[in-house]
Amino acid sequence: MRKFWLMAAAAAVLSTPVVAAPSAKDRAALSGAVKAAHATSVKRLQNWIALPTIANMGINHKEGAEYMRQLALDAGFQQAKVITTDGVPGVFATLDAGAPTTMAIYFMYDVKHYDPAEWSSPPLEARIVDRPGEGKAIVGRGAVNQKGPESAFLAMLHAFKDSKTKLPVNLVLVAEGEEEIGSTHFSQIVLNPEVKPAIEKAVGVIIPSASQGPDGDVTLSLGAKGVVELQLISSGEKWGRGPKNDIHSSNMARVENPAWHLVKALNTLVADDGYTPAVEGWFENVKPLTARQKQLIAENAASTDEAKLKASMGVQHWIKDEDLRTSLERLASQPTINIQGIVSGYTGPGGKTVLPGRAEAKIDTRLVPDMSKDEMVAKLKAHLAKHGFGDIEVNVTGGYSPTQTDENSALIKAETLTLKNAGINYTLYPRSAGSWPGVVFTGAPLNLPAGQYGIGRGNGAHAPNEWFLIESSNPKVAGLDEQAMLYADFLYTVADLAKKK
Amino acid sequence: MRKFWLMAAAAAVLSTPVVAAPSAKDRAALSGAVKAAHATSVKRLQNWIALPTIANMGINHKEGAEYMRQLALDAGFQQAKVITTDGVPGVFATLDAGAPTTMAIYFMYDVKHYDPAEWSSPPLEARIVDRPGEGKAIVGRGAVNQKGPESAFLAMLHAFKDSKTKLPVNLVLVAEGEEEIGSTHFSQIVLNPEVKPAIEKAVGVIIPSASQGPDGDVTLSLGAKGVVELQLISSGEKWGRGPKNDIHSSNMARVENPAWHLVKALNTLVADDGYTPAVEGWFENVKPLTARQKQLIAENAASTDEAKLKASMGVQHWIKDEDLRTSLERLASQPTINIQGIVSGYTGPGGKTVLPGRAEAKIDTRLVPDMSKDEMVAKLKAHLAKHGFGDIEVNVTGGYSPTQTDENSALIKAETLTLKNAGINYTLYPRSAGSWPGVVFTGAPLNLPAGQYGIGRGNGAHAPNEWFLIESSNPKVAGLDEQAMLYADFLYTVADLAKKK
Repeated sequence: MRKFWLMAAAAAVLSTPVVAAPSAKDRAALSGAVKAAHATSVKRLQNWIALPTIANMGINHKEGAEYMRQLALDAGFQQAKVITTDGVPGVFATLDAGAPTTMAIYFMYDVKHYDPAEWSSPPLEARIVDRPGEGKAIVGRGAVNQKGPESAFLAMLHAFKDSKTKLPVNLVLVAEGEEEIGSTHFSQIVLNPEVKPAIEKAVGVIIPSASQGPDGDVTLSLGAKGVVELQLISSGEKWGRGPKNDIHSSNMARVENPAWHLVKALNTLVADDGYTPAVEGWFENVKPLTARQKQLIAENAASTDEAKLKASMGVQHWIKDEDLRTSLERLASQPTINIQGIVSGYTGPGGKTVLPGRAEAKIDTRLVPDMSKDEMVAKLKAHLAKHGFGDIEVNVTGGYSPTQTDENSALIKAETLTLKNAGINYTLYPRSAGSWPGVVFTGAPLNLPAGQYGIGRGNGAHAPNEWFLIESSNPKVAGLDEQAMLYADFLYTVADLAKKK
Repeated sequence: MRKFWLMAAAAAVLSTPVVAAPSAKDRAALSGAVKAAHATSVKRLQNWIALPTIANMGINHKEGAEYMRQLALDAGFQQAKVITTDGVPGVFATLDAGAPTTMAIYFMYDVKHYDPAEWSSPPLEARIVDRPGEGKAIVGRGAVNQKGPESAFLAMLHAFKDSKTKLPVNLVLVAEGEEEIGSTHFSQIVLNPEVKPAIEKAVGVIIPSASQGPDGDVTLSLGAKGVVELQLISSGEKWGRGPKNDIHSSNMARVENPAWHLVKALNTLVADDGYTPAVEGWFENVKPLTARQKQLIAENAASTDEAKLKASMGVQHWIKDEDLRTSLERLASQPTINIQGIVSGYTGPGGKTVLPGRAEAKIDTRLVPDMSKDEMVAKLKAHLAKHGFGDIEVNVTGGYSPTQTDENSALIKAETLTLKNAGINYTLYPRSAGSWPGVVFTGAPLNLPAGQYGIGRGNGAHAPNEWFLIESSNPKVAGLDEQAMLYADFLYTVADLAKKK
């Protein structure tokens, strides 16, 4: 494990670095401080996992924000305050290092809900377990999504503090507690009159992320689709033509059925092929992929084992039986309207002779540039009304527009250079099909480069037994300490690149 | 309560009965025996409720059949045996009274499943409670559907036995334990080589039923729609184009979704109006209502408080905003395809970003003469295959064809005459929209008249706090003893009418 890091450090020293790394003395001091505080850093992560904030369940909203504020102060931010919103509060903190350059950091402190019965160890215990062939990992809710990687960033800041090393950049931190429900009020935090002037000075924004695969390679995404999560609710009472509650199914001969009403409404949302969005105007602002984006996808396709990918997904065919490259282009470029779930009437084993009073479809739509969340919600509502389904409630529970960052921005350059200097293989990817609320930064009015960034490894976000590697037995994969040091190197690189500009 | 019965008896004696009732001596002996055994009869019902047979949960299949067999023997049947089937066993019993006429009785001994948490008293305790304005009722699973009315019939038989009175007809009993799951194997019981020759001698078949409304009036149904219960299952794995299990919803851009596949399939099953069946050939064998059937419906409509009916159902509009009479004609005459429920993917609060591996719709279709169950299942499967949904599994869990009995049959004549002699108002109704497996009797090869029959009152079949009146405070509504005596009068009437033929 240490070997990996020594190699990376050696690469930085012995090769001809494009920009200056931290001084050898500073780096040794920081590395020593990270190692000395390893147990403390792990304990900090465990304590944090023990306090879950779950936005849609009303769990630890205030407590989670206050805890986040304290974590920031402890890590060296000179000021940190809770920012109230119309939903779960956020946190804003600043660390003024007297540097000419400012970097912004985005944290989420909430986690997805969980069922302890499905876990092999209590999800809030954050137990340390051996993962054969990988090393020691923490198992707990939030371990990889996102408290683990964020703790690696905090461990880096503590190392600066403990070794009394001056940070090469100033930092602005914004944290939210609603990431898992679509960051509904995040812009209220970022555009807060106190926060906005601070963050708009930054050269870019990162959210710490454990991005290494099992072989140690990193995929660096230049953007992500937007998402709108919503429920379509067909209510007999609201509609006026169905029953208020479930009634005996024999009444289907004389009373209309809200479940049929929902099926007929859903049917209009995608074409007969069962996947192409058919909402009026849905493709109006869809930007095609650029030649460079297609090139990056082709490179990625060439290095992907398609059979292994399909097997891992439990999938036999891509849409239209396309080849991997075409299918990856589709994944990056096409907006979607997905059914996450449907629930109506009797849902247990066998059947029950009822005509249900209510039917609900859970939908997510993924958006690509230049679609926007507000535009898509308006178009969906107009479409439903036009087709005779104006009574169907559109309950938008979260979401945001797509995010995209220029490959040539200072942020991406610093990110790739840091990886290169550390000897870590990486691939650029034009756009993730999954979503994160980067548009709050990359969109107007801030228009900042932003992305997920970090090394290290974990898995099981949103699933039982979520884990995050803290000590890696594979020299190509980082543990907690190596992740912390990469963030240190990254901040120096950001400062150096800014100086050269 | 007793007043009601005395009045009814007086009516039979003082008016000019069309046929002879039982001799005054026999009737007094029977009535005395019923009253003397009241507590024993109630206890018999309570003990029976304590042993629920639940077909689809594998609960008390053998035990329920054996219990049913013993109930028959105790009530005076000379032989009773368990008839095995490919599902839950049935019971066949005979009581040879040396009479020229034979009557057949159909019992169901199974009950619907239940959740004790939803009940005000334990559903198997069969607690006796006061119902203000109605009398004393038993609350328990199976109280009204169907152990209560069946217990009234058994109480009548015990009265014959206890008073050593000779039965005016021979009896054949067939009982099943799968009524609540669509009587899947009931024809195996009825057409058993030992059972069929016995039952085909009968003038008709009744299933005891508590048919009085709160005002004491009885609605006598001459038929019932058939029903097919089935689940339509769209499986990503079986289809081959969706995922094996739930995967991340971002994959909607490259992987087809079994929930959309199900929506597209469902959409073809009914017309754009959301209720008219659109399966090819669905209406091919639908017989229009006769003038007499329309007349009976018009009479019923004229005596129905439409606003009250709608309020009780929680409904504001009938289909097409039809008037009550037209809507009742539709209810009796139109086949349906109903969605009982849909379940796919994430069904909890809010949303979850998954693309589900499976989607299921729970369907029931109601059939009218001359549609048949096998015909409709075959047509549904052919329709799905023709429209590109041949992969969708059609899991038929139960059902049977419609049943219809001639108003001029000896059975219906005996039923109505008995009610008339007892001074009980009744309405003939051409066809219930609900279903019962009468077609096993009314269809080939038996072609017997068959129907639900009885007085008394209860409610909450399939629901929590199901109840059945055992002592009525309304003189127009029967308790357990009065129900038993009506069955005695009915058997005498059957015998008398047969003699006159």
